[in-house]
Amino acid sequence: MAKELKELTKRADNYSQWFNDLVVKADLAEQSAVRGCMVIKPYGYAIWEKMQHQLDLMFKETGVQNAYFPLLIPKSFLSREAEHVKGFAKECAVVTHYRLKSDESGNGVVVDPAARLEEELIIRPTSETIIWNTYKNWIQSWRDLPLMCNQWCNVMRWEMRTRPFLRTSEFLWQEGHTAHATREEAEEEARRMLHVYADFAEQWMAVPVVQGVKSETERFAGALDTYTIEAMMQDGKALQSGTSHFLGQNFAKSFDVTFLNKENQQEYVWATSWGVSTRLIGALIMTHSDDNGLVLPPKLAPIQVVMIPIGRGEEQMQAINNKLQPVVEQLKRLGITVKYDDSDNKRPGFKYADYELKGVPVRIVMGGRDLENNTVELMRRDTLEKETVTFDGLAERIITLLDDIQENIFNKALTYRDQHIYECNNYDEFKQRIKDGGFFLCHWDGTEETEAQIKEETQATIRCVPFGVEQTEGIDMVSGKPAKYRVIIARSY
Amino acid sequence: MAKELKELTKRADNYSQWFNDLVVKADLAEQSAVRGCMVIKPYGYAIWEKMQHQLDLMFKETGVQNAYFPLLIPKSFLSREAEHVKGFAKECAVVTHYRLKSDESGNGVVVDPAARLEEELIIRPTSETIIWNTYKNWIQSWRDLPLMCNQWCNVMRWEMRTRPFLRTSEFLWQEGHTAHATREEAEEEARRMLHVYADFAEQWMAVPVVQGVKSETERFAGALDTYTIEAMMQDGKALQSGTSHFLGQNFAKSFDVTFLNKENQQEYVWATSWGVSTRLIGALIMTHSDDNGLVLPPKLAPIQVVMIPIGRGEEQMQAINNKLQPVVEQLKRLGITVKYDDSDNKRPGFKYADYELKGVPVRIVMGGRDLENNTVELMRRDTLEKETVTFDGLAERIITLLDDIQENIFNKALTYRDQHIYECNNYDEFKQRIKDGGFFLCHWDGTEETEAQIKEETQATIRCVPFGVEQTEGIDMVSGKPAKYRVIIARSY
Repeated sequence: MAKELKELTKRADNYSQWFNDLVVKADLAEQSAVRGCMVIKPYGYAIWEKMQHQLDLMFKETGVQNAYFPLLIPKSFLSREAEHVKGFAKECAVVTHYRLKSDESGNGVVVDPAARLEEELIIRPTSETIIWNTYKNWIQSWRDLPLMCNQWCNVMRWEMRTRPFLRTSEFLWQEGHTAHATREEAEEEARRMLHVYADFAEQWMAVPVVQGVKSETERFAGALDTYTIEAMMQDGKALQSGTSHFLGQNFAKSFDVTFLNKENQQEYVWATSWGVSTRLIGALIMTHSDDNGLVLPPKLAPIQVVMIPIGRGEEQMQAINNKLQPVVEQLKRLGITVKYDDSDNKRPGFKYADYELKGVPVRIVMGGRDLENNTVELMRRDTLEKETVTFDGLAERIITLLDDIQENIFNKALTYRDQHIYECNNYDEFKQRIKDGGFFLCHWDGTEETEAQIKEETQATIRCVPFGVEQTEGIDMVSGKPAKYRVIIARSY
Repeated sequence: MAKELKELTKRADNYSQWFNDLVVKADLAEQSAVRGCMVIKPYGYAIWEKMQHQLDLMFKETGVQNAYFPLLIPKSFLSREAEHVKGFAKECAVVTHYRLKSDESGNGVVVDPAARLEEELIIRPTSETIIWNTYKNWIQSWRDLPLMCNQWCNVMRWEMRTRPFLRTSEFLWQEGHTAHATREEAEEEARRMLHVYADFAEQWMAVPVVQGVKSETERFAGALDTYTIEAMMQDGKALQSGTSHFLGQNFAKSFDVTFLNKENQQEYVWATSWGVSTRLIGALIMTHSDDNGLVLPPKLAPIQVVMIPIGRGEEQMQAINNKLQPVVEQLKRLGITVKYDDSDNKRPGFKYADYELKGVPVRIVMGGRDLENNTVELMRRDTLEKETVTFDGLAERIITLLDDIQENIFNKALTYRDQHIYECNNYDEFKQRIKDGGFFLCHWDGTEETEAQIKEETQATIRCVPFGVEQTEGIDMVSGKPAKYRVIIARSY
């Protein structure tokens, strides 16, 4: 482990390599035998389970129900919404056959040419088309609305360049699809779910986010508006962490989904869709972690507290166990996940490094001297501060500390983020400073030409028109034309 | 609704049609636009979520961790284990391309012939191959064992004849895959998980099951032993509801997975795999439900109690609400899911029929007279018995009743099952009686020939060699040869 830890690239040396190393060394995920698809290992998956559990509660509180729609989508469905197919056609995994047969040697198998599908099927890159084709039969009158379903599932987008959690060909996500009677209700729903995502990011992941609306170029294929939460990583780049789309009546028209309104007239239904994915784990890692390994927010850490007894001889070990076990039980009753590591095949130094690497928020060590003094050594992962504290009231102290860590890492990330948001009015200055990362609040004339020029010349993109920012008119720094508002421009993942 | 209910086929008329009707009318699932794939609707999915939640707890209590492995499996992986590929090749959905492009008309899309995969990828029919290819890198020494992972996911088997929940091309399931240092440990694990499935079926689904081991012909492709739980449906047919496989060293050898044992020697790892699927929902429906609709076990019912206030005028309605709401709150605090249905757009009769159809275990109705008399009308779905009871202590009464219903439907199913298990020693008698369904305990000579003859002549199969049955030697009723034990023979889904 000592050796492995040394091999963890430093953030300052190569931030991107540090991330890739960390994903593997902290046992979160690894590359699989299938191009661009990862295996999510138990430790990484445990984080995803905690995320799912909380998000699922938050969705259900708004009245959303879970359901499950088919993995495969008939090719013709994709074509029905013109923008949608343009956006996804280039990255579709296509099923063409439904049977294998023995090859001539008898040792292997080949695709059976006689088992060709009449119509090819696409592994869902997202499910708007199959879901709206289904909603058609579920919606007749205004009484059937709103209809709000979510599914937790896998999707596939054949990406050319992949990175664990951030961009993989297959990924796990949730996709919510809602149907409403009015434009206003649908827009409200799209914004409501954006706020749910922002609350989750900030309160559970301890990741501060900017909420805003995407430019037309960056919209979801088939949406009238795409809302986004954008987080800032430690290298100053943006990570789009969740999106919520107001789809207007586009899919309702493509799939002929109408309802009888209260005035007894047939109308097309209004739609939203919204999703977050295992990409959130990438955001989590890149926001908080350091050169020693992961730093996990206590609310999502698979192991929240580790306790390591260090006794000499069986008798002392037993005495330490007797002292610590009631605290373990007390914490478990309070819903805290505790790992009690008295394994004897690893040295304490190895254990320390390993739990640091894994980002366990609180470490308690009790040795012989602690036993004598009625103390323990307590370490918090976020600051790596160690303290010798009295054993009395240990469980309560840990609970308070977990809250404190959650708050501290959020504040740390928030301070970093706010220190790296700049107003900028000069394109030359922008071109220089964007190299060091950060979010730039710049006036934009609203044209695709300017947006394209910025991207071409700086590899930065318009992340969003941010909400909650007082907007004033001004001059676009690139074109010199009048601009109604400032947008956030940044390089991104 | 009254009309729809009339349309629910009676079990006695056509059991199979009754099942298909019920799945659709109770809003559990429906056929999708993709051949053999269903949409699981919110009400059906809510049952699956409850199943998942409980099974997941039970798995984790045995030390199993969740993980996630790729959806797609390289074709060559399937061929590595000879029996495995034989079992699955005929029902594989094959991905051959990774891109679409506009067709000549510009209105549609076609598969881009330039985007052909070098090696075809199979949508997982089960994941032994990709997982054992991964385990190879996770296992070096005996200290890495046992390794016990589970995944909740979708799988695809291109079935020619499909039925909702019972047999669909895509289905949701969990698949556990464990690796052990010794044969004994692996066999013990395979049996342990079978017992977990049996406990879940009996205690949560209220479905009594026979546990046993499959004949060689009926084994999972690549297993040395397949253990099974077999439930009896109301038509006397068997439904295989869960299987657990002892895989020996077959997959370890195919994927070269060895470990250094305590004696410092390289050895192949021993394996198990085990799974249950959305088929369990089929078992649930077919075991308990009746001509009025679903009968759901309280422990898995998405709505456990429905309360329907029937007031005349706003004032009376308000008085009833004031009386019932505290009970709703009290039940919710106790973890009971209560639906309070005061909607005014449906008549009481419609609501009654609808909640019966949906299998809600307990229905409480309070009308004007009840208000005067301090009573409610209470109906239990399993027996359809109605009772007017005092309002006092209502929550406690409901809790007790839910337990009682859970127990009662299990006992009812158990009685039915036990009344339809027969010892049979005469093949002519067997051929006659099998037409009416039931499980037949018959001596079997252990040969594939006899097994094939029974299947050919009666469409019945050997379901398993049952555990917990006192076995005596005897004579095979078909071949007249000596037989060491009795097996269960039945027609099945």
